[in-house]
Amino acid sequence: MDDAVPLAQLPHHDGSPLYIEEQHPSLGQDLVMRMRVPATFGTVASVHVRSNPNREPRFAEATLVASADGWDWWEATVEVENPVHHYRWLIVTDDGRQHWLNARGLSRVETLDSEDFRLVAGSDAPDWAAESVLYQVFPDRFARSDAADSRATPDWAIAADWADPVDTQPPGRSKQFYGGDLDGVRDKLDHLVGLGVNLLYLTPVFPGRSNHRYDASSFAEVDELLGGDEALVRLVGAAHERGIRVIGDLTSNHSGDGHEWFASALADPEAEEAAFYYWLDAVQAELAPEETASSADAVDASYAVTDAAPDAPDAPAAGAAPAPADGPAAPRRSYVSWLGVPSLPKFNWNSEVLRRRFIEGEESVVARWLRPPFNLDGWRIDVANMTGRYLDEDHNAEVRRIIRRTMNEVNPDTILLGESTNDAAGDFQGDAWHGAMTYANFTRPLWSWLLVPGSTAFGGLGFALGMVPDFTGRQFVEAHTQFAAGFPWRTRLGAMNALDTHDTPRFATWARPGVTPVALGLSVTLPGIPVVFAGDEFGLAGEDGEASRTPMPWGTIGEADVSARIDLYTDLIGLRRAHLALSTGSMRWLHVGDDVLVYVRESPSESVLCVAARADYDVTLPSVAVAGADAATPAFGDGRLAASDDGISLAGSGPSFSVWVLPGVNPA
Amino acid sequence: MDDAVPLAQLPHHDGSPLYIEEQHPSLGQDLVMRMRVPATFGTVASVHVRSNPNREPRFAEATLVASADGWDWWEATVEVENPVHHYRWLIVTDDGRQHWLNARGLSRVETLDSEDFRLVAGSDAPDWAAESVLYQVFPDRFARSDAADSRATPDWAIAADWADPVDTQPPGRSKQFYGGDLDGVRDKLDHLVGLGVNLLYLTPVFPGRSNHRYDASSFAEVDELLGGDEALVRLVGAAHERGIRVIGDLTSNHSGDGHEWFASALADPEAEEAAFYYWLDAVQAELAPEETASSADAVDASYAVTDAAPDAPDAPAAGAAPAPADGPAAPRRSYVSWLGVPSLPKFNWNSEVLRRRFIEGEESVVARWLRPPFNLDGWRIDVANMTGRYLDEDHNAEVRRIIRRTMNEVNPDTILLGESTNDAAGDFQGDAWHGAMTYANFTRPLWSWLLVPGSTAFGGLGFALGMVPDFTGRQFVEAHTQFAAGFPWRTRLGAMNALDTHDTPRFATWARPGVTPVALGLSVTLPGIPVVFAGDEFGLAGEDGEASRTPMPWGTIGEADVSARIDLYTDLIGLRRAHLALSTGSMRWLHVGDDVLVYVRESPSESVLCVAARADYDVTLPSVAVAGADAATPAFGDGRLAASDDGISLAGSGPSFSVWVLPGVNPA
Repeated sequence: MDDAVPLAQLPHHDGSPLYIEEQHPSLGQDLVMRMRVPATFGTVASVHVRSNPNREPRFAEATLVASADGWDWWEATVEVENPVHHYRWLIVTDDGRQHWLNARGLSRVETLDSEDFRLVAGSDAPDWAAESVLYQVFPDRFARSDAADSRATPDWAIAADWADPVDTQPPGRSKQFYGGDLDGVRDKLDHLVGLGVNLLYLTPVFPGRSNHRYDASSFAEVDELLGGDEALVRLVGAAHERGIRVIGDLTSNHSGDGHEWFASALADPEAEEAAFYYWLDAVQAELAPEETASSADAVDASYAVTDAAPDAPDAPAAGAAPAPADGPAAPRRSYVSWLGVPSLPKFNWNSEVLRRRFIEGEESVVARWLRPPFNLDGWRIDVANMTGRYLDEDHNAEVRRIIRRTMNEVNPDTILLGESTNDAAGDFQGDAWHGAMTYANFTRPLWSWLLVPGSTAFGGLGFALGMVPDFTGRQFVEAHTQFAAGFPWRTRLGAMNALDTHDTPRFATWARPGVTPVALGLSVTLPGIPVVFAGDEFGLAGEDGEASRTPMPWGTIGEADVSARIDLYTDLIGLRRAHLALSTGSMRWLHVGDDVLVYVRESPSESVLCVAARADYDVTLPSVAVAGADAATPAFGDGRLAASDDGISLAGSGPSFSVWVLPGVNPA
Repeated sequence: MDDAVPLAQLPHHDGSPLYIEEQHPSLGQDLVMRMRVPATFGTVASVHVRSNPNREPRFAEATLVASADGWDWWEATVEVENPVHHYRWLIVTDDGRQHWLNARGLSRVETLDSEDFRLVAGSDAPDWAAESVLYQVFPDRFARSDAADSRATPDWAIAADWADPVDTQPPGRSKQFYGGDLDGVRDKLDHLVGLGVNLLYLTPVFPGRSNHRYDASSFAEVDELLGGDEALVRLVGAAHERGIRVIGDLTSNHSGDGHEWFASALADPEAEEAAFYYWLDAVQAELAPEETASSADAVDASYAVTDAAPDAPDAPAAGAAPAPADGPAAPRRSYVSWLGVPSLPKFNWNSEVLRRRFIEGEESVVARWLRPPFNLDGWRIDVANMTGRYLDEDHNAEVRRIIRRTMNEVNPDTILLGESTNDAAGDFQGDAWHGAMTYANFTRPLWSWLLVPGSTAFGGLGFALGMVPDFTGRQFVEAHTQFAAGFPWRTRLGAMNALDTHDTPRFATWARPGVTPVALGLSVTLPGIPVVFAGDEFGLAGEDGEASRTPMPWGTIGEADVSARIDLYTDLIGLRRAHLALSTGSMRWLHVGDDVLVYVRESPSESVLCVAARADYDVTLPSVAVAGADAATPAFGDGRLAASDDGISLAGSGPSFSVWVLPGVNPA
């Protein structure tokens, strides 16, 4: 890094329209791309784009096309030669120094391919993906419709009243049943409209034997306990009328052990469904990882060989005993399951029949729910990272590409998100997933910067040993940047910016006092899809990924603190929705301090300047940092901005989040 | 990075036997691994290994097993769950801080998967690979046997006398023919024995229509101009008698346009060989990159659509007009070629027939030359990085794995090296290639540190714009480390440490005065295979990859400066061969300054301390840096080492290279 150069005066490029107008390049297309260098950087002798087609470098020379506001703009034409086209910039200054600019920043030393900028040719990500604000609903805990009262509690469940506390210990953890349903969600759609969200994500709606339904017993119908297929049709229809898209949740890594496919497989080793799972004989069992069950949390349990039989033990976290197989008693057989949880047998994607039934072609599960009458707008895929991976097999790329191809056959105007809770970039290069549900680039760095130091976060969020490291602002940016840099720009715009989810503790549980506007402000202004886990707007707390699944406290609406918080969510989501630059604009850091982060999202039509502070701040940027500061319009928060010949002064108390709208950037 | 901690006092781990005794893990095996932390690092609360099986993190707790010489040694057991098993270490100190240790070093922030250490399960790399010192011979320029005089100059060639200067301009560049042959190489094997090299790499020996023979016209026979098949049998036999292994060179990316397969394809579009190449109709030609021919050097030429016909133009660098097809005149057809050079049509690896004939199974080209009577000890594969890659096709992984599988069928005790001249790590994860012929991790950083500032290097070495950036020692280490870190340990030991090759200028051409011992010293002591391009030991110069192909000046043997240089090579290669730690030992940096680098290769039996300096130096290391310095035995150079209670003092004039042998490290 050129450490000596102030952040606001570094050369910059990213994949946004300010730098690459053509946002949908095709293979073989000549693409014009731009890069900006501040006049203060030194005399530039030459600028090139280094592409890496077929892994062999090629240089395209750039020309100086404009100078404005203290910045020179260079432009080059680059041919998109592979579906994922890697490139980086090389600036040579007249002192003979080479300055490489890639997705991680500036370097004086030749850089790695993995840090390149990258273009995706033929990306099928719908434009609305990046413009979405996602609202996550866990159906059992969101709302009960009137019809819910007439339903009987299923045999596996332990009935709970809406006001009951969440039981975080087995068996209640997965069996406690509040009876929320899809018509309940529909009843509350105006709450979503009020917040301004435009994408509703439902965790699984297929029948299972747990309150979370990640142990699907079928993908052929919506759980009757949620109102069945018709309730989903009603919900999606009502949502669409309100401009809200709806996506579902599929488990491509495993089914439940109560799944009809698994039952067929257990009942008859010759059944075609038997090939849908991994069965282990004694020799293979030797090879497979042992169950170590080192933690009370299933997420931390080890991958394991488990025994399938009617008397199989209940899983520690999410397990249900397998449904007794119909017909004669099946022999005891060993199989592979998700992290050793017996209730979640892992799919074997060698099976062509499994592919055809589940993910491939218009008759598959993946296709069926996107078609009328259901019309889902896409899928979130659970445990996408582990899907198809086992010992020396790796079908992950095949599976994800088939899923997306099938979706394109049915309705290309759909979104595909994959769960990959750590370094997701390797699988997220534009061949299938439009965005990652990951915690590495946003959620964990956010917690590390904004939680009370020394907090623990138990399982679910992926913190090593459940400990939240204490970050400075610089470390927040370092972590955010390195994990975001691995995504193509469009995929980065589809990455999840969540404060928390149904799998994690609630952010509010251990947050420093007053930082919710900072956290949510970052969520709606950094590249990526803001994610609201239902209930956060009510200020819910929850110490782990189980306790966070609190039934929605609808009765508290109107209480002063709840109203204030809902207003905060409404305002910040409204800000995001009102300014397209926050969805698709360029991302440039201007100042990074221990306690304050200043950055700007820029586009040709307008720019948005953001200040996120966890403490009082007083920062002066050089005037060249951003143009038009003297015409800044406050859009959120009560920070103070003053532009003069001496620079741009930003000051305020903290914790706080402040936003100003500036003129767009039009160098040419 | 924990910048405040001195380099010599950082926690350390790598894949060497000091840290992982089992160097040949199998899938599913429990492996014990160790890591060392200096007592000065602070109080360690816990140490874990984080693995990432199936891309889902798992932690194994380490225990303190030994304390010695100011270091604590931690040990953990890790199960190897995938063929490439990613892992990193996590040290938590009692102040609650997390310190991640991965292949790039130490970080306070969670790190990327791409920077993990990695184990390869079931690696088939022979142990002798890492213990090799490679000597590269370009057959036309090495030596003429008596038989060479009786051979007629071929029609494509321009005869040259051994003393003639190299013609670097077309057509002489590829046509100038000195007539070196394989019996000539055999005649000089005692020169190789004298140097101490144990692996001979021959650039192509198949017939072609150029002096470099990368435009093969057949893979079925050794060029008669080199003495034919029998000469190869004689050479390999004689080399083996002297303990020298021999590898050949195959072009998996392309053939020559004079190749028998290409001729068949041109003559008949229905021939099965027609599917061996990429033929373009008008529509496809639109998609394909255009020929830009921006440089006089073929390496810098663009990938191109070219026209195959008897009147096709000569290529700028290596081209020959296609051989007229037998039979009726073939229609003019467009095809894809290497970087737009018409004489090098690119292989289309979709063809199963091509796979069978060339790389797959015991009857293939790959297999044939490893079997008796030829008995080659392996292959170097040309343009491995581009092989099988074209537009949206990528058969690279398939092709390389098939090549290695075939080699294993014929003789697993063989080596497979791939040319990949930039960031090679992506393709070099242990599934096929044992080592990379790359310039990114050693050659270019070396030149940047040791060339006269402002030097240019033209094409061939992969410097951006042909410019050699001027590096400090710190930048040398940064570049070396980041490109080496992406390899599994065993693959890193097989990476090429070359000062130059037949494709590059000679290092000596622009080197600072007196730095050859420094460069060669680094080559034989850093992890990787030292590579000597024949002629360097005579002090040859050459301004680019053409001029460097000077006929060997055998007549100068005995001249004082030549003798001195050959002695230097003999001594440093001898040092490498005498100390196994230089081949397989741990690699730890102790001091990195602008002008001096200090590092140690460590093993349980002995350690080797190295000082590479481009200027005078005087460095004091803390005593904890390395144990046993008071028992150091000088092994090369005239640097001064003094160990006292105040630390370890290293001083000397520069440029220089100095080595001491120390006791081994035995913590337990």
